[in-house]
Amino acid sequence: MTVKINENYLLLESNYIFSEINQRVDKYQDNNPEAKIIRMGIGDVTRPLPNAVINKFTEAVVEMSKADSFHGYGPEQGYDFLIEEIIKHDYAPRGINLSKEEVFISDGAKCDTANIQEIFDLGNTVAVTDPVYPVYVDSNVMAGRTGPMGDDGRYHNLVYIPCTEDNGFVPELPEKSVDLIYLCYPNNPTGTALTKEELSVWVEYARENNSIILFDAAYEAYIQENNIPHSIYEIEGAREVAIEFRSFSKNAGFTGTRCAYTVVPQELIGFDNNGNPHSVNKLWNRRQTTKFNGVSYPIQVAASAVYSEEGQKEIAESIDYYMNNAAIILESLSSLGLRIYGGVNSPYIWIKTPDDMDSWKFFDLLLDEAHVVGTPGVGFGPSGEGYLRLTAFNTLENTKEAMERISKLSI
Amino acid sequence: MTVKINENYLLLESNYIFSEINQRVDKYQDNNPEAKIIRMGIGDVTRPLPNAVINKFTEAVVEMSKADSFHGYGPEQGYDFLIEEIIKHDYAPRGINLSKEEVFISDGAKCDTANIQEIFDLGNTVAVTDPVYPVYVDSNVMAGRTGPMGDDGRYHNLVYIPCTEDNGFVPELPEKSVDLIYLCYPNNPTGTALTKEELSVWVEYARENNSIILFDAAYEAYIQENNIPHSIYEIEGAREVAIEFRSFSKNAGFTGTRCAYTVVPQELIGFDNNGNPHSVNKLWNRRQTTKFNGVSYPIQVAASAVYSEEGQKEIAESIDYYMNNAAIILESLSSLGLRIYGGVNSPYIWIKTPDDMDSWKFFDLLLDEAHVVGTPGVGFGPSGEGYLRLTAFNTLENTKEAMERISKLSI
Repeated sequence: MTVKINENYLLLESNYIFSEINQRVDKYQDNNPEAKIIRMGIGDVTRPLPNAVINKFTEAVVEMSKADSFHGYGPEQGYDFLIEEIIKHDYAPRGINLSKEEVFISDGAKCDTANIQEIFDLGNTVAVTDPVYPVYVDSNVMAGRTGPMGDDGRYHNLVYIPCTEDNGFVPELPEKSVDLIYLCYPNNPTGTALTKEELSVWVEYARENNSIILFDAAYEAYIQENNIPHSIYEIEGAREVAIEFRSFSKNAGFTGTRCAYTVVPQELIGFDNNGNPHSVNKLWNRRQTTKFNGVSYPIQVAASAVYSEEGQKEIAESIDYYMNNAAIILESLSSLGLRIYGGVNSPYIWIKTPDDMDSWKFFDLLLDEAHVVGTPGVGFGPSGEGYLRLTAFNTLENTKEAMERISKLSI
Repeated sequence: MTVKINENYLLLESNYIFSEINQRVDKYQDNNPEAKIIRMGIGDVTRPLPNAVINKFTEAVVEMSKADSFHGYGPEQGYDFLIEEIIKHDYAPRGINLSKEEVFISDGAKCDTANIQEIFDLGNTVAVTDPVYPVYVDSNVMAGRTGPMGDDGRYHNLVYIPCTEDNGFVPELPEKSVDLIYLCYPNNPTGTALTKEELSVWVEYARENNSIILFDAAYEAYIQENNIPHSIYEIEGAREVAIEFRSFSKNAGFTGTRCAYTVVPQELIGFDNNGNPHSVNKLWNRRQTTKFNGVSYPIQVAASAVYSEEGQKEIAESIDYYMNNAAIILESLSSLGLRIYGGVNSPYIWIKTPDDMDSWKFFDLLLDEAHVVGTPGVGFGPSGEGYLRLTAFNTLENTKEAMERISKLSI
């Protein structure tokens, strides 16, 4: 006998896009030590945690220093004090009623969106929009749902739903019926959003086809326009067909602090091979109680401060700051004649490369000539070829400087 | 089409032992509101975080409040500053050399021991000691490696290695060759430990059979005797055959703060179906970078303070406190003529029930007559029947009070 590895891992692409980016940037910096490189590639926030969060966080750390206020193991699903704030502030005002048992606190939307597929059978057909956040794809590759990748850059058993200029970045219903559908809106990487009507089409599809939508709403706080749903549960009938992922990373700067949550409505059901229905909420509860041990108590306290009056005010200021950057990027690049998408309801700007340049060529051009780092769109899937992503998460000063430099290029 | 669930979840036992315990305790308390119940069941610490940890934790929270010291996404594998302390303090003094790439910081040993099986093929034969920490079993049930449970309380395709009075709680090598072996020493739930010689037998077995040992050392800080290995890598040749799990939960009180780590040596290999070797370290790295997003920065800073001079002193005091409780329990119960195990190199005491009472009957006796809550041994597996676990994690006062009450019983 010998230990066999999970061979599905061998089907993964060996090169991470972000490590390839880092290698190119490091090489350029080595050869050009005087170049002041501005990084607008990775989707990480730069503004500190809100003061309201810091204050509560600190208080909770002090609680951990005394036996009578110390917290050991908490509930794997999260503390009620945080779950109640989430329901009260993120859902009730939009007319969405959730019970506490439907909200699961976690240490990240990345973990949740990667882990959620574990509770479903390997035989389900999975659909992703293309381009897409690579975690949805890779977690399914590792589980064994996708088969190998073809020469076209697509995994054989995965259904790709192209979102490009041609369809205005609105995903079209798949021809083949699919079981699990990952949707992320406002979208990473394209920065585009779906209106209520556009998202309703998918809820209706899921209801008719007994599919489940895995809805990643990590960027909902950036929504500026009125007709864009913040939660999929704003769409009637969505409770029966959708799981929603939310995070404190992008609204409150928790990328390095780690807190998120997932909503799994009680109505959601899946079937066993005998056709018997089973509660998806109970499956996720079992997954989390067995393979997870809850989020740090001080961090849950810190996250609850996001919902305080001061917290909400500070968060709004940060989002305004980033969205001002986004507006500057949109205006600067549009005035150059580039075709630009996103950036209105999201911190991501999706640029069509000039002259149909490929993604990496445009990446190199921006790095070499403007010392600005973006993310090549092709890294997010085949339909991302010919695009490049910039983020609004840098400082105002760096954002302006980057736009000035790009303006001087002959593109 | 309909969404199919992961049917392996239906093979799990529906009743958690700890929820059954809570139900019985709540019912008893309702009927006997005056009873002062002492809980010695769950393995959770009660003493607060060390001051050294609190101080660094607080400083790191303040760092998160300023743009120039704010931390966003960190490395999924953990920060070097913590990994370096771990290598320097937990391994180097025992003659074990680890590289930084071999240590992966996580939010809990529960998560790591549950997730590790994902990187291995479903066809591997898995062995567990019996009784056992349920997470090892359940994570393999959910993945589909065990098949259904038989009437004997054993999953068909899982190899059980009984650890009972009959063999002095020393696991015997399995007759059938196994691929993956979970060993937890000092042991949860029995509280027993293995000597270097006893553990060497398993390392030798793994080397001869090309197996991998998944070694859970979460309780190593409680080791008092000299010939008990703190790390499996103290055994020659273990680097080629063992993964080790460690945690800050039980030594530094991080059960509610969440930080742990896993060591995956570079030498460790598994094979694909064509017989090609693959680095297990690389597989785990890919698993963690795809499905995990790193531990909170302030918590990693807090964990690094565990290794400061003050931190080490405070931790030693806490462990002495708990082990003094253990000694009191051992002495009190032994003097009653009960057969008692563990409690010397671990905070767990494993009691053989008097008169071959079953686990739940003894549980009810202690609850009804002494208002003391233990954990029925059968909840940890078939070979736990006829035993009950007590923990040393309560206060000295409660521990003494519990022992006085039990001493008055006619057992």
